Amino acid sequence: MTSKIKKIGVLTSGGDAPGMNAAIRSVVRTCAYHKIECVGIYRGYQGMIEGDFKEMGPRSVNNIINKGGTILKSARSSEFRTDEGQQKAYDNLVAGGIDALVVIGGDGSFSGAQFFSNSFNFPVMGIPGTIDNDIFGTSHTLGFDTALNTVIDCIDKIRDTASSHNRLFLVEVMGRDAGHIALNAGIGAGAEEILIPEEDLGLKRLLESLEKSKASGKSSSIVVIAEGDKIGKTVFELKDYIEENLPEYDTRVSVLGHMQRGGSPSCYDRVLASRLGVKAVESLLEGKSNFMVGMINDKVALTPLIQAIKGHTQIDRELLRVSDIMST
Amino acid sequence: MTSKIKKIGVLTSGGDAPGMNAAIRSVVRTCAYHKIECVGIYRGYQGMIEGDFKEMGPRSVNNIINKGGTILKSARSSEFRTDEGQQKAYDNLVAGGIDALVVIGGDGSFSGAQFFSNSFNFPVMGIPGTIDNDIFGTSHTLGFDTALNTVIDCIDKIRDTASSHNRLFLVEVMGRDAGHIALNAGIGAGAEEILIPEEDLGLKRLLESLEKSKASGKSSSIVVIAEGDKIGKTVFELKDYIEENLPEYDTRVSVLGHMQRGGSPSCYDRVLASRLGVKAVESLLEGKSNFMVGMINDKVALTPLIQAIKGHTQIDRELLRVSDIMST
Amino acid sequence: MTSKIKKIGVLTSGGDAPGMNAAIRSVVRTCAYHKIECVGIYRGYQGMIEGDFKEMGPRSVNNIINKGGTILKSARSSEFRTDEGQQKAYDNLVAGGIDALVVIGGDGSFSGAQFFSNSFNFPVMGIPGTIDNDIFGTSHTLGFDTALNTVIDCIDKIRDTASSHNRLFLVEVMGRDAGHIALNAGIGAGAEEILIPEEDLGLKRLLESLEKSKASGKSSSIVVIAEGDKIGKTVFELKDYIEENLPEYDTRVSVLGHMQRGGSPSCYDRVLASRLGVKAVESLLEGKSNFMVGMINDKVALTPLIQAIKGHTQIDRELLRVSDIMST
Amino acid sequence: MTSKIKKIGVLTSGGDAPGMNAAIRSVVRTCAYHKIECVGIYRGYQGMIEGDFKEMGPRSVNNIINKGGTILKSARSSEFRTDEGQQKAYDNLVAGGIDALVVIGGDGSFSGAQFFSNSFNFPVMGIPGTIDNDIFGTSHTLGFDTALNTVIDCIDKIRDTASSHNRLFLVEVMGRDAGHIALNAGIGAGAEEILIPEEDLGLKRLLESLEKSKASGKSSSIVVIAEGDKIGKTVFELKDYIEENLPEYDTRVSVLGHMQRGGSPSCYDRVLASRLGVKAVESLLEGKSNFMVGMINDKVALTPLIQAIKGHTQIDRELLRVSDIMST
Repeated sequence: MTSKIKKIGVLTSGGDAPGMNAAIRSVVRTCAYHKIECVGIYRGYQGMIEGDFKEMGPRSVNNIINKGGTILKSARSSEFRTDEGQQKAYDNLVAGGIDALVVIGGDGSFSGAQFFSNSFNFPVMGIPGTIDNDIFGTSHTLGFDTALNTVIDCIDKIRDTASSHNRLFLVEVMGRDAGHIALNAGIGAGAEEILIPEEDLGLKRLLESLEKSKASGKSSSIVVIAEGDKIGKTVFELKDYIEENLPEYDTRVSVLGHMQRGGSPSCYDRVLASRLGVKAVESLLEGKSNFMVGMINDKVALTPLIQAIKGHTQIDRELLRVSDIMST
Repeated sequence: MTSKIKKIGVLTSGGDAPGMNAAIRSVVRTCAYHKIECVGIYRGYQGMIEGDFKEMGPRSVNNIINKGGTILKSARSSEFRTDEGQQKAYDNLVAGGIDALVVIGGDGSFSGAQFFSNSFNFPVMGIPGTIDNDIFGTSHTLGFDTALNTVIDCIDKIRDTASSHNRLFLVEVMGRDAGHIALNAGIGAGAEEILIPEEDLGLKRLLESLEKSKASGKSSSIVVIAEGDKIGKTVFELKDYIEENLPEYDTRVSVLGHMQRGGSPSCYDRVLASRLGVKAVESLLEGKSNFMVGMINDKVALTPLIQAIKGHTQIDRELLRVSDIMST
Repeated sequence: MTSKIKKIGVLTSGGDAPGMNAAIRSVVRTCAYHKIECVGIYRGYQGMIEGDFKEMGPRSVNNIINKGGTILKSARSSEFRTDEGQQKAYDNLVAGGIDALVVIGGDGSFSGAQFFSNSFNFPVMGIPGTIDNDIFGTSHTLGFDTALNTVIDCIDKIRDTASSHNRLFLVEVMGRDAGHIALNAGIGAGAEEILIPEEDLGLKRLLESLEKSKASGKSSSIVVIAEGDKIGKTVFELKDYIEENLPEYDTRVSVLGHMQRGGSPSCYDRVLASRLGVKAVESLLEGKSNFMVGMINDKVALTPLIQAIKGHTQIDRELLRVSDIMST
Repeated sequence: MTSKIKKIGVLTSGGDAPGMNAAIRSVVRTCAYHKIECVGIYRGYQGMIEGDFKEMGPRSVNNIINKGGTILKSARSSEFRTDEGQQKAYDNLVAGGIDALVVIGGDGSFSGAQFFSNSFNFPVMGIPGTIDNDIFGTSHTLGFDTALNTVIDCIDKIRDTASSHNRLFLVEVMGRDAGHIALNAGIGAGAEEILIPEEDLGLKRLLESLEKSKASGKSSSIVVIAEGDKIGKTVFELKDYIEENLPEYDTRVSVLGHMQRGGSPSCYDRVLASRLGVKAVESLLEGKSNFMVGMINDKVALTPLIQAIKGHTQIDRELLRVSDIMST
């Protein structure tokens, strides 16, 4: 491949996700494969503003494919939202001889990339990295599959003790705006009910469902709740509500929290990261810009960044139905 | 749904795979949801011949979604390949009031199902359960995703010791006819080379690749080898060959073996099993027969059993290229 | 062995712990080995009062050694604290032909056993089962080792994201009265500070320590906090306090909760459970009563129940020092 | 502490084991705590001969407590067995200003340390690091506990598929001279028989035991075999022998291999490593030499190196009996 691009910068931005290191590795090694240079930019856009750069060769990314987190670290940068911040960042890229950028992050990070690219006519390519799976243009974001396995592993443990004591557990998982984690992990963990932002089950139906579950002979129950679920109560308020209305239940709360963002990535996420990194670099080398690489119908595909930012993912309503049938 | 089918039998057949229990649970609960009866048939077709049946209700499958293996057990049955065997099996189904069959297994099991269904005009539906992912008509078979995670978990451990001693490890994974496990887990584990049945890398290129890897400064190397790889040497012969030709390598062998078939299923496999079980039962209730349920483009879809049996899956050649770039 | 004891009852009581199933299995199989009968008593003392018994043979406990929770279920029973409750329980034991009792649980459960045994001159033997490791007379209680591994696995994941964002995490672990989990898992997870019930570090020293940690170049920090730590603030109040006083820290909270009680037991806990079960049954057969079996200096040993109840475990102060040195 | 020792070298030698990194971290930070310098010596004694040294401060060992392998790498050195080799090593230590040595490894490594120390009157301290647990003077060597958990995790997976197909599995685990892994993991995994170097069960008793197991209604069986077991057949020869004599068994072999040496250390191994590292450094600072630090009766204790080398560990015969009872 001959291309005007001789040096690519790569950064991770926003909330970290398992698989980000595997994606960095893929970007770095694909650059090396095509005999172009690669620069790691630390702490996302903030590091771009501060010129926190480091040359990376194929050996810089040895033994990171299986590590959670991001060796480039991540940060949010309010300065990058200002003209001065963007100008400083651009000046640093130019000074460093960097011709193009791969941004690994979520839609907030993509908005920054899109704006920056338009302002300075600078080639950028996005790789979707967030456990929430809420990015339009890909069936899977980096880290989603790993987070699901982390969640079901925790709930399997909780179920051991729930079964031993005939208890009801309310388990809060991540997902402020999207119920993908709750819905998939809920089915995977055999939850009796799943509360998500996209669907208002209603408190009344929840109580009915729990009563039915008890009547059907189940000795313990798990309810999986996305942070941003529609009912709008905190998981602790929900506990109080259930105990008031269903005093026969001994109810406990578990908030899984940030461990969902960490851990060694699953095989799926490692392969995904490897594929997306190759495609991101090669698309830049082909002269493309302002796209996100993702998986569509099990194939790597490009989606214009602007669509990835503005589009909305939807939960698969078939899964709601499957969940309903499974809790029979 | 009103249907002539009032009682469905479910069995697991062939090599077991993680997610089979989750699929059994899904079949049983979907039957209960639609208020029809469900019967578990033990030890595959052999149990069908021997009338080894057990009524199953929604509580019979509590707490199995996260268990490896199959509570219905599996077996190979040579008797089922005879007319007498098939007749006995049919008589038992009729005697038990069973109207339709869900068969969870691989293509050998589907051939049996197809033949039986044609002989007795008996409704059958297949669910692909095998870690090898070598079934046409679905992007994923039950157990494949879990097996990949098992394999990379093992190779991550092996890499710890490989790195500490600057060694070359030859790791044999399952896959007599198909390289899906080797190819995906090889990329996921960061293997330097991957040998699969579908592609003859050749011994010479392997040596060149290992020499290049050493020259590039890598201190340790992993080669992942499918059981049925094209080179045709056993992994132990390969070790001898490499040590003769590259005496600077301290080479070790690891054969992962049957642990790849076990373990608690991944979230992906549990959700997949739940979806496929629902679709299998509901397709039978809609009067369909002789199909396999599977995933095509991230959606549950039907493929005629005959195609599933005769079709061949192909490895994604993009992955070969990704593997090549990643070992830079 | 010839003994007057012909049938032994076994129950689990109090909070469940990984390894309880392995202990039940051991009790049941040791009875079979010595050709005496064994009866499982469900839901602890409450099931004893209600006569919720089930005969158990060696095949009843197949495939449970690796399962979390307790197949006999656990419960707390206020009725067992009354004379009527104890009388009913005794009558049921006599009616069932049960000659002796193995109680798997914590010190509350042992108090009940001790009282019951004295009232009715009934042989009892205790097996310490609780993740908290707060029982006098054994270096390890069942479940403690497993819980430690669960906790460090979670904190390893949290550290991935903590490092990526340069954050401070406050991680609350179980331990209302004892800091064993916090102290060991804190060292194991590389925590910068560990707060436990046995030692008042004081808020001021915590702040100093965090400032020193930052100054030493650490980019992220983990503080592990036992539920019952001496400072007396909730983990959320602590977060507010730290953020007020050390505004440079971006502080997050994670409460690990009940998952610490579940999961497949570690090898240590499985072997421990097997050893203690053998000793408990054989001690009863030798005519002993009112002892707890435990590990002292790596050997199985007996401690009078009354001492196990009244004694206090102490944290190993060497570990406090090790923790201090490790956070250099 | 005031001491003549101002700079300590640390190395890992022999087969690697999980927890070695945690021990390196502990040595490095304990040096920093006592304000003395620390130098990492790469590739064991070979690196000592080649002067492959690196200064290490407390931040050099960030985030390694949870990593398998050894960041200092390990190697065997035949040159170190020569007078010239030892002289070169000594000269390098003197040139580097190193006053004392901490050697993390097994008894072969300790022999080298002992000999070297005597030749040059050089202070050395040993930390037992090997998964085999075959070092006299400590109840646990670094990595033993982790290896046990790795083994039972594998066998749990194998049992899933063994149970599904009613098969007999022969599982070979590490242990050329010592049966500690086989005995403990065998009990932990619920093996029907355990073959170890210390005890000649005899082929005849093995067959009888397997026949009894089948007769007792067990549908699958696991036999755990240490590499160096007394029967003296390879595990593959054993398979042939069993199939000839017990044709009703469908027998499979699994050789777990080097993955037993890798993986993230268990909490026990991390805490152990931290404790032993502190004690090793502080003992050197107190002027002691030629000791191994280890655990005796749950306390850190010193054993003269010469005893650690010459002494023999013995299996706990109580465990043999427990195993026998558990397979009832």
